[in-house]
Amino acid sequence: MNFDKLKALYINCTLKRSPDKSHTSTLMKVSQDILRKEKVSFEEIRFIDYDIASGIYPDMTEHGWEKDDWPKIQKKIMESDILVFGSPIWLGQKSSEAQKLIERLYGMSGETNSKGQSIYYGKVGGCLITGNEDGAKHCAMGILYSLQHVGFSIPPQADSGWLGEIGPGPSYGDTEWEEEKIDPPMGFDSDFTNRNVTFMTYNLLHLAKMMKANNGYDNYGNSAEGWEDGSRWSFENPEYR
Amino acid sequence: MNFDKLKALYINCTLKRSPDKSHTSTLMKVSQDILRKEKVSFEEIRFIDYDIASGIYPDMTEHGWEKDDWPKIQKKIMESDILVFGSPIWLGQKSSEAQKLIERLYGMSGETNSKGQSIYYGKVGGCLITGNEDGAKHCAMGILYSLQHVGFSIPPQADSGWLGEIGPGPSYGDTEWEEEKIDPPMGFDSDFTNRNVTFMTYNLLHLAKMMKANNGYDNYGNSAEGWEDGSRWSFENPEYR
Amino acid sequence: MNFDKLKALYINCTLKRSPDKSHTSTLMKVSQDILRKEKVSFEEIRFIDYDIASGIYPDMTEHGWEKDDWPKIQKKIMESDILVFGSPIWLGQKSSEAQKLIERLYGMSGETNSKGQSIYYGKVGGCLITGNEDGAKHCAMGILYSLQHVGFSIPPQADSGWLGEIGPGPSYGDTEWEEEKIDPPMGFDSDFTNRNVTFMTYNLLHLAKMMKANNGYDNYGNSAEGWEDGSRWSFENPEYR
Amino acid sequence: MNFDKLKALYINCTLKRSPDKSHTSTLMKVSQDILRKEKVSFEEIRFIDYDIASGIYPDMTEHGWEKDDWPKIQKKIMESDILVFGSPIWLGQKSSEAQKLIERLYGMSGETNSKGQSIYYGKVGGCLITGNEDGAKHCAMGILYSLQHVGFSIPPQADSGWLGEIGPGPSYGDTEWEEEKIDPPMGFDSDFTNRNVTFMTYNLLHLAKMMKANNGYDNYGNSAEGWEDGSRWSFENPEYR
Repeated sequence: MNFDKLKALYINCTLKRSPDKSHTSTLMKVSQDILRKEKVSFEEIRFIDYDIASGIYPDMTEHGWEKDDWPKIQKKIMESDILVFGSPIWLGQKSSEAQKLIERLYGMSGETNSKGQSIYYGKVGGCLITGNEDGAKHCAMGILYSLQHVGFSIPPQADSGWLGEIGPGPSYGDTEWEEEKIDPPMGFDSDFTNRNVTFMTYNLLHLAKMMKANNGYDNYGNSAEGWEDGSRWSFENPEYR
Repeated sequence: MNFDKLKALYINCTLKRSPDKSHTSTLMKVSQDILRKEKVSFEEIRFIDYDIASGIYPDMTEHGWEKDDWPKIQKKIMESDILVFGSPIWLGQKSSEAQKLIERLYGMSGETNSKGQSIYYGKVGGCLITGNEDGAKHCAMGILYSLQHVGFSIPPQADSGWLGEIGPGPSYGDTEWEEEKIDPPMGFDSDFTNRNVTFMTYNLLHLAKMMKANNGYDNYGNSAEGWEDGSRWSFENPEYR
Repeated sequence: MNFDKLKALYINCTLKRSPDKSHTSTLMKVSQDILRKEKVSFEEIRFIDYDIASGIYPDMTEHGWEKDDWPKIQKKIMESDILVFGSPIWLGQKSSEAQKLIERLYGMSGETNSKGQSIYYGKVGGCLITGNEDGAKHCAMGILYSLQHVGFSIPPQADSGWLGEIGPGPSYGDTEWEEEKIDPPMGFDSDFTNRNVTFMTYNLLHLAKMMKANNGYDNYGNSAEGWEDGSRWSFENPEYR
Repeated sequence: MNFDKLKALYINCTLKRSPDKSHTSTLMKVSQDILRKEKVSFEEIRFIDYDIASGIYPDMTEHGWEKDDWPKIQKKIMESDILVFGSPIWLGQKSSEAQKLIERLYGMSGETNSKGQSIYYGKVGGCLITGNEDGAKHCAMGILYSLQHVGFSIPPQADSGWLGEIGPGPSYGDTEWEEEKIDPPMGFDSDFTNRNVTFMTYNLLHLAKMMKANNGYDNYGNSAEGWEDGSRWSFENPEYR
């Protein structure tokens, strides 16, 4: 398989600013190591390192905010074929940074590509979640839902992550807990996590490659602009049946 | 576009047994009318019309249940390229029948196709939700999450549905509420619902066609059997870095 | 503290019919052992052992079902001060039986007590969740939400449960996994689970006792019948400001 | 009924900074009008108007952040008997500000009151959600779950809000949509919303009053410090049965 034309963007929605250690970033590296060997280019950014305004418009400096780095992130997403959305878990829920990213992606809903479709059509998305006990699936539900809703395609088994047992405990990649050494680092020997991160990574590649070969989705039946202009394809108004 | 080799299965997880009127079924017809005109074959079933055992094994008659119609449903899913998962909303949540369907799909996790992948690889899924006020997105989160987790691919904007305003009120397709006639039937003139059902339907067709053309996913990097047998492709154990 | 006039009902929404072993039931016993020593009477039932119809009316035999054991369960709930709602987790979500119980509780929304309030006013609720890796908080979100929505009061830390590490593994109370003995049984030595089950149990008792002493909620400001009859207390219609 | 010793804090998790119009704030006023007439003191703040650091420690200035207004908010919560948690909905989910508030509340988990309980014990919480189409119940699930988990008590029917019909449309309190006047303002005449906001408000008052009369919860069976020190009350370790 040759995936070398593809580009991936990892957005880590940790609450920790660089250079603080992020467990989610540690897990992202497992996926990125695969991309490196498959000659797929990628970039990882932390959402919180940027000065992102709150709101749901493409550029919040036009709505009263002094600064807004979102357009920079948006540009990176547009240049990528794959988005890997990373989040830690707080009280069983995705982070506030993750929800902020969703809000900004959603804020692009009105934008369309040259086919009249939502601008994220043709891109694929997955997620990587880390937490020390509970909530990976719940976070993935909200994240993958949001991605498909704004235009991404989701391949099989696109949710992966790591969790410890219930209660406080070490997080992914930790080498110490309550003064005891952990070797290998926590979670590194989880066959389950290793397998799922691998499957997610490859499925994103496979689907992104298919999307690229097909030039995304044909706009027959899904063009927002087309609908606006009166195209209905084979849709028939239920009123007139 | 020619979609005529594709087959779709609509599973309605209403709590109402046939022939009682299901609002979710009424909405399904909007999508099915498109398929008919596009010459795509389809079938609609109600999960509750079958005698489905509770549990998480492929055939619960091997686990103490006298009867289990799940293998019949499973066969229909395997013969289809597209699964449209329909659910009503109760207290903001997908129906108990919807969760039962998820449990049975999940119960097939151990089964693999000839490439060693989960058996639902290569199939695509979407959902149709009806409720009289709130919860369509929440239901879609759980349903689409579950579908991708067991192997389905999710195209863009694969969640669609209809909801009324907050509080009690007429449901999709109702022609009367509190002794007043509703004409056209409730929701039939919702441009938003009509558009979203159309986009979902076509995106399912586009992605299913791509899947068929590619014979699903290559098993490089995602074969459960391969992993079991020691294949790791470009995955590198993080312990050994 | 004297809690001996209180009664608790444990409804286990496992997918396993009696006498199959339920891990959720095993965890319920930890809570019940406290009640026994505190001289609080209790009963545990499995929802799936009953012949409960699907639907959202108080008695589905009036809506086409041949049989419906819900009125029996409803009677048990009415005779109790405390409801402990137990559920296993399937694919990060509460069981189909749990959702069915929610649907039936919701189906009682139209019924009112002698004060004109929803009939579950004055009762308190909590939940116990078991799973082998992920989803306890997510299940608790849906369950506790539903309980308060239909009239139950929720004390602090009313969610408790047990989860193993990510991936397949033993469940609560298991004494063997992949041919290795587990001693003590899985989870029995989890200080976190033991503490949380204890806190939940006592907080349910404390709040139930307060409710009993206050004869539930005064109906000033919360009577469905009162509102229907035009009572508005200090509510002022925002239109008229 | 006399509620005049009680204090309520409304935290609005809108994405809009003052003095921009917040629909959630408009709905909060319906509840506050009741408090005013019942002589209950209250304050409303917008979380986003403060400079709140991201993270999960009580004071993030001790963890590398230059500024953190959380201690100011925390002080206001401690001085209140009632917390009304308000959130808008974005893509069916509570706002990023709402999740940030949850993270900061959760960050206080290690703190205890003079009885050794979580510091929010004895306080009561509810939520007010506004959105233009879908997600109020889903948002309430996450919010009420989080509140009870950190120590708040939840009275019956503590979730209320307003939603419009599916698709784009006016929000709560809007007086214009697509160049047409709306009079009365959108949602003001919703009997359902008016009733539910009223019930929530009064139930918060009733339960807060009960809590005050009981001096919160007795610490028999729920003291974090007590557990730490070896108290077990009637809990019996399941290992030793």
